[in-house]
Amino acid sequence: MHQRLEVALGDRTYPIFIGDGLIRDPDCYRPYLRGSRVLVITNETVGPLYMGAVLEALGDLRTETLILPDGEVYKTLDVVNRVFDALLTHRFGRDATLIALGGGVVGDMAGFAAACYQRGVDFLQVPTTLLAQVDSSVGGKTGVNHRLGKNMIGAFHQPRAVVADTATLATLPDRELSAGLAEVIKYGLIRDRAFFGWLEGQMGALRARDPAALAEAIARSCQNKAEVVAADEREAGQRALLNLGHTFGHAIETGVGYGTWLHGEAVGAGLVLAAELSHRIGWIDSVSVDRTARLVDAAGLPTAPPSDLPAERILELMAVDKKVLDGHLRLVLLKGIGDAVVTDEIDRAQLLALLER
Amino acid sequence: MHQRLEVALGDRTYPIFIGDGLIRDPDCYRPYLRGSRVLVITNETVGPLYMGAVLEALGDLRTETLILPDGEVYKTLDVVNRVFDALLTHRFGRDATLIALGGGVVGDMAGFAAACYQRGVDFLQVPTTLLAQVDSSVGGKTGVNHRLGKNMIGAFHQPRAVVADTATLATLPDRELSAGLAEVIKYGLIRDRAFFGWLEGQMGALRARDPAALAEAIARSCQNKAEVVAADEREAGQRALLNLGHTFGHAIETGVGYGTWLHGEAVGAGLVLAAELSHRIGWIDSVSVDRTARLVDAAGLPTAPPSDLPAERILELMAVDKKVLDGHLRLVLLKGIGDAVVTDEIDRAQLLALLER
Repeated sequence: MHQRLEVALGDRTYPIFIGDGLIRDPDCYRPYLRGSRVLVITNETVGPLYMGAVLEALGDLRTETLILPDGEVYKTLDVVNRVFDALLTHRFGRDATLIALGGGVVGDMAGFAAACYQRGVDFLQVPTTLLAQVDSSVGGKTGVNHRLGKNMIGAFHQPRAVVADTATLATLPDRELSAGLAEVIKYGLIRDRAFFGWLEGQMGALRARDPAALAEAIARSCQNKAEVVAADEREAGQRALLNLGHTFGHAIETGVGYGTWLHGEAVGAGLVLAAELSHRIGWIDSVSVDRTARLVDAAGLPTAPPSDLPAERILELMAVDKKVLDGHLRLVLLKGIGDAVVTDEIDRAQLLALLER
Repeated sequence: MHQRLEVALGDRTYPIFIGDGLIRDPDCYRPYLRGSRVLVITNETVGPLYMGAVLEALGDLRTETLILPDGEVYKTLDVVNRVFDALLTHRFGRDATLIALGGGVVGDMAGFAAACYQRGVDFLQVPTTLLAQVDSSVGGKTGVNHRLGKNMIGAFHQPRAVVADTATLATLPDRELSAGLAEVIKYGLIRDRAFFGWLEGQMGALRARDPAALAEAIARSCQNKAEVVAADEREAGQRALLNLGHTFGHAIETGVGYGTWLHGEAVGAGLVLAAELSHRIGWIDSVSVDRTARLVDAAGLPTAPPSDLPAERILELMAVDKKVLDGHLRLVLLKGIGDAVVTDEIDRAQLLALLER
């Protein structure tokens, strides 16, 4: 039961494969390798679980491997430099293909390394977390964090293919499964009201890792993301809607210290904050806020920032977020469930009141 | 006596302004700044000479400045990170514009920082060396060196405008003027036989810094480069011809240690090596080799690698150069003066014989 979606970007169009056991399928890799040399990049957690399967699928290609430390704190320029070290030590040329095997951190760093190595080589995404399968592996956003802000350094660089093997989710810790569900809920909130309703009914099955429910949630999420990216690759317009909950989320994530809260956990709280703010300015009713908070809670996610993180600190961190255009804060808010818009009409006092509630 | 050329790249088309005193002309900057915030990046040598003039031209814009150390040894990822530090400390948003004021090192680093900051912001090139005015500021190649190879990390990112003020060449050391002439000679060799002949007659005037001769040499070089870049922005084909002499040059530059020889000096020797090799395989006559060597010598440049750099070492360094495709060495050679081609027909023995002569 495999699915094949497509991100339509002209001559850079690429497939997303979703299904059980795909990580072992040579047909998911071979057609997307232009040269004969491959570097598989993973981390110390995922490597022991799945590197063998990937190498087997790659067969007799000239393949090297690189194991990075595991964790968001390692998503830095210094660690990306280790990828360059490996590529140059093994004398990879412009026909190199990088394969990112792991979660969003590995994918973001391997993708950024691919974007910059010799001014751009190919890469494939093999996401092994729910978050990466439904969000970060699709759409070409790559990059690293800086001590003064998340994802501040990066590039748009599309993969040649995305291979989402649902079987890899079996080894995913519960907390990371929940973190991925934050992004799944997000697609429902911003543009797919029917999907939001489906999620309300299926959240129990998803957390119990029902294979059919997970495959459906991943495919529907990827379909939504693929449509948005195809329409607005470089975030000139509607792609910004994918940031619902993220401006709050990034500030929370930075405020508690990278790696203390998972990205998806911070986004979960951010989704509820966005819904609450949308209600405060009269855009949505309280029922919609309650439905959002209940679904985020049902996903096993926090519905508010940690109580010991001061509202002032969150505001300060939001101001350095890259969605601030020329000093003006832009936020994604809701006109309804399944209907998000970008606005710059929120002032500091409204934000402070929300965060201090 | 100002000239305006154009690099034709669709909606990313941009002008090159060439002329005396342009660095002080607000009209060379203002139309190309989309936001209100500017970071001017220069080095400790160029800053004291021209930063004041640029700031005056920018008038009342919200401008910050950053002074980097001077020299090719500082063209590293670590130093680019200082640009990110400055941008984030001053809370620059996606509407930031970076201005690169200086030579190729400043331009390559500022351009790469612009390519990566928040996945891409605008930048302007204000080259103050001949090398940067005729070559590195035009065409969008940005990046940094790695200890295992030059320009191995980077991005294609086109500037919004290039402002080449010929008056800034008055403060350029003789050695750097000569280094720039290596790239000027290169355009004649690869695609402009008439320009090569003009250079044979004008080399004395150029080294004496005759303003009219310099302006003509810069404009003609930029015109050649603009045509090549417009036809092949990402070096899928003919843009590779611009690397004539550079595979040898990079190996020499690395072999003697970054910063010992200037880039243009190594390219000078590389041009002569390329001509000699083209003659050895019967593509050009000895007269063409002699003309090339004489013109390179007349420009004040070395015509051979340093005698204490072993041929084996140069070969080893060439093998890691990024023009090596899948283990196969690709070189640009000459079918005649003004007629360069890419070839992969040269084997190791032929290279060794050439370098050991």
